Amino acid sequence: MRTLRAAPLSATAFAPFGEVIEVSDAAHHYPINGGTTERYHDLANIDPGAEGRAIVSIFRAKPRALPFAVRMLERHPLGSQAFMPLTGRPYLVVVAPAGDAPRPDALRVFLAQGTQGVNYAPGVWHHPLLALEAVSDFLVIDRAGPGENCEEAALAEALGIHLA
Amino acid sequence: MRTLRAAPLSATAFAPFGEVIEVSDAAHHYPINGGTTERYHDLANIDPGAEGRAIVSIFRAKPRALPFAVRMLERHPLGSQAFMPLTGRPYLVVVAPAGDAPRPDALRVFLAQGTQGVNYAPGVWHHPLLALEAVSDFLVIDRAGPGENCEEAALAEALGIHLA
Repeated sequence: MRTLRAAPLSATAFAPFGEVIEVSDAAHHYPINGGTTERYHDLANIDPGAEGRAIVSIFRAKPRALPFAVRMLERHPLGSQAFMPLTGRPYLVVVAPAGDAPRPDALRVFLAQGTQGVNYAPGVWHHPLLALEAVSDFLVIDRAGPGENCEEAALAEALGIHLA
Repeated sequence: MRTLRAAPLSATAFAPFGEVIEVSDAAHHYPINGGTTERYHDLANIDPGAEGRAIVSIFRAKPRALPFAVRMLERHPLGSQAFMPLTGRPYLVVVAPAGDAPRPDALRVFLAQGTQGVNYAPGVWHHPLLALEAVSDFLVIDRAGPGENCEEAALAEALGIHLA
């Protein structure tokens, strides 16, 4: 089985797939509420599409064992999908560029820290949630609306993921 | 100074003001991703209004000292505003029903746990973020768009808040 090592998640590395949601000096930020709070503003392109609406859910995810074999990816062609960890634990992000099918040679694997969320742009291929270490909760912002918004694609060859 | 004790935050008690965002058997929930994740679905009425869009930000809030004197409230007439704690610490929620001005006798104070978010319905009067214990981060889902979406109102009389 071909294997990939997870790279650290950063806004720059993840840019082809969407946004990293995190406190960063690179974000537009400014004090509010009489200086008691700093607002890091508009960190993700939430896109529910013309006929959809943004909804908020919580995903409670069981942890996966490593090394993990990636055998499929999914995509949501009609809207973005954001994940923000609520329990402070790292997780894995597996993505491939939007397109008719995920190209195995274009897969990227990132290790996200518990302070980092991700927002997948519409159509970006990604693996379902890969929590690590323990049961973990994530706030999820995605789309409700008409139409079929989840497609799955099996990979021709499984890909093994290692942390280091 | 008149004083109020914080009540435990619950979906029922908070219903006149919006929704509590939390994992709960009362929510619509179902397994996804081959049973590895439980989805607690569509937990808040995210409402950016007809001319707005939902945006995601992070608020980094300094903790307040108790007892705290509430002297003002604010409201966002054009959209909802949701807060989800990212650092697992409790916080205070001070609200009054939507209307031309907050009625001091209608103020309610809730102690939210670090696993509970709140979504204020459009126009609901609320105090700016009241973190407790330590600097705390919150994911915030509110509105960007045309028009003036923040109004403040001073209370005729300050209200002291105690935890118990």
